[in-house]
Amino acid sequence: MFIQNAWYVACSLAELEALAPKPLARTICNHKMVFFRGPDGIPAAIEDFCPHRGAPLSLGKVCEGKLICGYHGLAMGHQGKALSMPGQRVTGFPAVQAYAAVERYGFLWVWPGDQTVADVAQLPSYDFLDHPDWAYGGGMYHVEADYRLMIDNLMDLTHETYVHANSIGQREIDEAPSTTSVEGDQVILQRHMKGINAPPFWQMAMTAHGLDPQARVDRWQICRFTPPSHVMINVGVALEGHGGFDAPLECKASGVVVDFITPETERSHWYHWGMARQFKPGDTVLTQKIREGQAKIFSEDLEILELQQANIERWPDRRLLMLNIDSGGVKSRRLISKYMAHEKS
Amino acid sequence: MFIQNAWYVACSLAELEALAPKPLARTICNHKMVFFRGPDGIPAAIEDFCPHRGAPLSLGKVCEGKLICGYHGLAMGHQGKALSMPGQRVTGFPAVQAYAAVERYGFLWVWPGDQTVADVAQLPSYDFLDHPDWAYGGGMYHVEADYRLMIDNLMDLTHETYVHANSIGQREIDEAPSTTSVEGDQVILQRHMKGINAPPFWQMAMTAHGLDPQARVDRWQICRFTPPSHVMINVGVALEGHGGFDAPLECKASGVVVDFITPETERSHWYHWGMARQFKPGDTVLTQKIREGQAKIFSEDLEILELQQANIERWPDRRLLMLNIDSGGVKSRRLISKYMAHEKS
Amino acid sequence: MFIQNAWYVACSLAELEALAPKPLARTICNHKMVFFRGPDGIPAAIEDFCPHRGAPLSLGKVCEGKLICGYHGLAMGHQGKALSMPGQRVTGFPAVQAYAAVERYGFLWVWPGDQTVADVAQLPSYDFLDHPDWAYGGGMYHVEADYRLMIDNLMDLTHETYVHANSIGQREIDEAPSTTSVEGDQVILQRHMKGINAPPFWQMAMTAHGLDPQARVDRWQICRFTPPSHVMINVGVALEGHGGFDAPLECKASGVVVDFITPETERSHWYHWGMARQFKPGDTVLTQKIREGQAKIFSEDLEILELQQANIERWPDRRLLMLNIDSGGVKSRRLISKYMAHEKS
Repeated sequence: MFIQNAWYVACSLAELEALAPKPLARTICNHKMVFFRGPDGIPAAIEDFCPHRGAPLSLGKVCEGKLICGYHGLAMGHQGKALSMPGQRVTGFPAVQAYAAVERYGFLWVWPGDQTVADVAQLPSYDFLDHPDWAYGGGMYHVEADYRLMIDNLMDLTHETYVHANSIGQREIDEAPSTTSVEGDQVILQRHMKGINAPPFWQMAMTAHGLDPQARVDRWQICRFTPPSHVMINVGVALEGHGGFDAPLECKASGVVVDFITPETERSHWYHWGMARQFKPGDTVLTQKIREGQAKIFSEDLEILELQQANIERWPDRRLLMLNIDSGGVKSRRLISKYMAHEKS
Repeated sequence: MFIQNAWYVACSLAELEALAPKPLARTICNHKMVFFRGPDGIPAAIEDFCPHRGAPLSLGKVCEGKLICGYHGLAMGHQGKALSMPGQRVTGFPAVQAYAAVERYGFLWVWPGDQTVADVAQLPSYDFLDHPDWAYGGGMYHVEADYRLMIDNLMDLTHETYVHANSIGQREIDEAPSTTSVEGDQVILQRHMKGINAPPFWQMAMTAHGLDPQARVDRWQICRFTPPSHVMINVGVALEGHGGFDAPLECKASGVVVDFITPETERSHWYHWGMARQFKPGDTVLTQKIREGQAKIFSEDLEILELQQANIERWPDRRLLMLNIDSGGVKSRRLISKYMAHEKS
Repeated sequence: MFIQNAWYVACSLAELEALAPKPLARTICNHKMVFFRGPDGIPAAIEDFCPHRGAPLSLGKVCEGKLICGYHGLAMGHQGKALSMPGQRVTGFPAVQAYAAVERYGFLWVWPGDQTVADVAQLPSYDFLDHPDWAYGGGMYHVEADYRLMIDNLMDLTHETYVHANSIGQREIDEAPSTTSVEGDQVILQRHMKGINAPPFWQMAMTAHGLDPQARVDRWQICRFTPPSHVMINVGVALEGHGGFDAPLECKASGVVVDFITPETERSHWYHWGMARQFKPGDTVLTQKIREGQAKIFSEDLEILELQQANIERWPDRRLLMLNIDSGGVKSRRLISKYMAHEKS
């Protein structure tokens, strides 16, 4: 159900630092992992299982780049090997699986699948996440639903009118036609709404950016899915008639909704969400305000998705409809399936 | 385990109104349903599954008699058909099951089984629930137990001495013989206790009715089971020697304990309980007081039944005893089985 | 997974008295039992199942040595037989299983297996638990883990350095060699540390005993496992060079850590822990202080064991290591297996 040979976001670096010197435990694509910083601070991901008596290594503590089991003090290295243990020779101890782990863009990325093909060059490139002209704020939710339901959700924003009626939803989303295309390994769904009033969230952003929130605007949503499960959405509003997405910076409030969707199991996932914006990057109060707005919006999705998951499990034989508005999700799932078939062959 | 072709209480109309414009979700006899008011306010019950993407329709809102899915705005009608959706033609959308639903006596009734034989004429007749000389108050509990354990409970009131020792229980219940009879589709268990002291609940009722609560009374319990799972219990006390159940209104405090027992699954049910009384019908404070007394009493049953259910599941092969005091439940279950066999044939 | 023909601690007598006149319900080795005091106060253990309608007998009350079912008043005797019921002849009622039960050392002991071989002479002998020169304090935890993981834990105290770093752990435990021996039906693991500083818990005990807590000490741990699952641990510190365990009373602070480990199911157990000490037996404040210290220490074990259990269930095919430090647990498990094989033959 998920691609194994790919980079997934395991956690934000902030999560990792907050726990230190404790490591962080998390299941990724059915692999029960523990994350910590090894020698010289390099990120490490190994199985959360002490080869001595099976205790979770995540109960332990990191000491000088080694993960010390909290039960009897076995020291595990970042490559999953037993390094030492009081009063024991550990040469013959079985190793546990180590996973390739890299930090980038404020996140720890992990490759859960075949380690012999783990390739840093395949890490996705999102330069705006590192760029000084951009600001980023985000958070994470654990969602009891198939991660593909989240992809469906994000690749079809007509739901905003219903699920997020009080923030970003507006009837014009339903009314504006969308186009879906596949470009290489990217599924792109876009919708452009012209000459409309901005919904509450964007009115707030326009005000923050010094634009009249009551002005008529052109609004856009450009959703880009890339395997294994990342969705970047260019969103924004520009004063009417200035070119929409292509309008000059001073006429628009815009950003990228960042969605890293990491499967935990077949029926649950970690949803790392956030927004990168190109205006007022130094305004941390605004960053916090947007984060709070997003947290509320995505909690509405979370509620829907968990109940949708339960309903689908209740009626496992029912086929769902695949309408034109669903084509973004449909094409994304098709790409996932293609990758998975490739992995098996 | 339950009769499907019958009318069950789905919810009280008050529950439905309290949620509007949201609909009400409830599983009845293993059917996951959503209830709402369709065109002109007619009650509607359909499967709680949006044919578009499987979200529960109960997340949505009712608008002009249509149930609008909370995910992408598909409008479902009271007959389970897709009526409209922004930007879509819904002609080919699969329908979901609709269930016959009728309102009566302050409740919404639903027929979960074969819809071609749903017959309003089969609704039970309880005229006292509509009569101006009577008052009614009640509530609802969700019980994690086979609904038949509740029928057993109500068709054998000797448990009152033990389970409800502080309210309606008294030793004389154990001592008075009961008789059980079957009249057509009704199982009737009765017990008459003569010349006793009224227990606390009935002393309260006597006081409310202007009778001396310390007076010796004749007390009766007449339990009537009718399929699929309704139990009406005539209960009351009359001043000693005035004819008991048949005593004139001014000499007695009496009523009907109303029990609509609606299976949710094989091991859980919705218990709609209440009391209709023939005295002081306009005294809403008294109605509230009786409701609170019943709420406490039935919560004692709930605790027993859930633990009994767990115990029976723990020892599935043990046969339970069927004593004379159990004959009300035994005969009721037999009637249920007869109906179920008939449904299958 | 557990020996059935043996005496287990079911509960402390204090637990039993605290509930009276309600009985106590507890599952022991997969037997769902209810405990109460029968005629003349003799301890009784019977199946927690009313033969009438299957309600748990533990919902009832004890009256004159009989357990009265809380549903319909069936009176059960301490031998599992129905004694009476209002309006019924109970001669033909099926009995429920009765279990041999004895009180000793402040606990109620039960024999869950074959009742025909239950033998009071096989009760273990722990005279210090009754001796006026000793004081005892303890408590009980419910642990969601195979009871053998607790035996492993107690028969290898090198974990103290890691799990109980702030109380009884110290690096010298890891460094001192231990010896394991089997003497008849007893597995003995001992470790003696010479000329060390006492860890915080023992400094407190030394102070209470009038010894200089900063003095260098000899420390010992002598763990004794006996089937089915009892672990007694002689622990203490003596002023350096006075003979350690054999030092005169005035030179040492010592005691016995008492561990009665009673399986509930294959994956959970009741852990009765406590400490008997030979100094200041009349000091109830000290008893309470030690109990609180132990409660915290054993809660640290509980957390580890439950996560270890979950981890082992997650990787059921992985074999755990059996190092020299694990030999106490390994030999104890071997003894348990020998007994179990004997029971089956």
